[in-house]
Amino acid sequence: MQSGDATTINVGDRSSGDHKGKAAAAPVAIKASKHAKGGWKRGVAIFDFILRLFAIGAALAATTTMGTTDQTLPFFTQFFQFQASYDDLPAFTFFVIANAIASGYLVLSLPFSIVSIVRPHATGARLLLLIFDTVMVSLTTAGAAAAAAIVYLAHNGNSGANWIAICQQFDDFCQQISGAVVASFIAAVIFMLLVVMSGLALRRH
Amino acid sequence: MQSGDATTINVGDRSSGDHKGKAAAAPVAIKASKHAKGGWKRGVAIFDFILRLFAIGAALAATTTMGTTDQTLPFFTQFFQFQASYDDLPAFTFFVIANAIASGYLVLSLPFSIVSIVRPHATGARLLLLIFDTVMVSLTTAGAAAAAAIVYLAHNGNSGANWIAICQQFDDFCQQISGAVVASFIAAVIFMLLVVMSGLALRRH
Repeated sequence: MQSGDATTINVGDRSSGDHKGKAAAAPVAIKASKHAKGGWKRGVAIFDFILRLFAIGAALAATTTMGTTDQTLPFFTQFFQFQASYDDLPAFTFFVIANAIASGYLVLSLPFSIVSIVRPHATGARLLLLIFDTVMVSLTTAGAAAAAAIVYLAHNGNSGANWIAICQQFDDFCQQISGAVVASFIAAVIFMLLVVMSGLALRRH
Repeated sequence: MQSGDATTINVGDRSSGDHKGKAAAAPVAIKASKHAKGGWKRGVAIFDFILRLFAIGAALAATTTMGTTDQTLPFFTQFFQFQASYDDLPAFTFFVIANAIASGYLVLSLPFSIVSIVRPHATGARLLLLIFDTVMVSLTTAGAAAAAAIVYLAHNGNSGANWIAICQQFDDFCQQISGAVVASFIAAVIFMLLVVMSGLALRRH
């Protein structure tokens, strides 16, 4: 109660000093302008929260799609059964781990996003989210790019290095991993939006 | 001469304002504390500038190291001469383009970084840098991760997909591309630091 009063008075003094200095109507006008400013930042915070929900969907889709790839070809030789799974290739294993970490982080970040909605002027939670979101931009992009490089190789092969394309045989496998890569890139783009929005909301005025 | 005097006075007042809080010197003390805050933000801006110089070095090193890889083996068959170059593999071409773009952007961003040093309270330049730095985090990380996936494959091969390791033959080539990937990851980490520092400097108080 007392701290609330103190805040109003402080704000009143600041803005009257800044703008015109109408002494009589000052506290009400200031309260309103503060509310409007808070409303703008609150809108950003709500959009932040919604984007995080979409990012959870994309990251989880990428993780599960890649994690459940397992295609066994219907023919086999005496020594070898042809089977493709994500853990044959380290890049895909990294992809699954990176997207799983991103999903977990996103769920844990939801409470901080809610704090930003409830208190639009608090900068601590936003700064924390900005730092970790930046790390996650890097992590999800790295996973997606590494997997994309291998997916490209699986589709096209490389004559210079004598690497053959394997997607003629493993067509389902290739479709699944391509979809997972796309989902992960979507998650990375959402993380980039989150970083930029945090920067906007941290801005002074 | 005059500015020199003013500085001396400010510094003197700052220390008295910070430590003891003499009521009589209040307006001066406020000016001084604002000055000190500007100094803190200016320090971040100078560090930002220095980090950009390091990032230019790392990105240029990555670009040139990868762009000049060209190893021809001393033996050849009737039909084929064994040669490895960065443009045999699309991931390496993307790597060179991404790091070249990052180098160019970094050079163009230096004036904006200088604006932040000269005017530590201006948020426009910082916000612009934050947005583009975030994009560059993504671009350099994507290039580095895609190249790293291929480098790993070149070193180790993959038995499941029947891709052979080519680094036994192309040892110089593999050393060069590994070095380029490391340089690019260093550039990506510096970009992440730049984003976080911009977020810190954009913070209100």
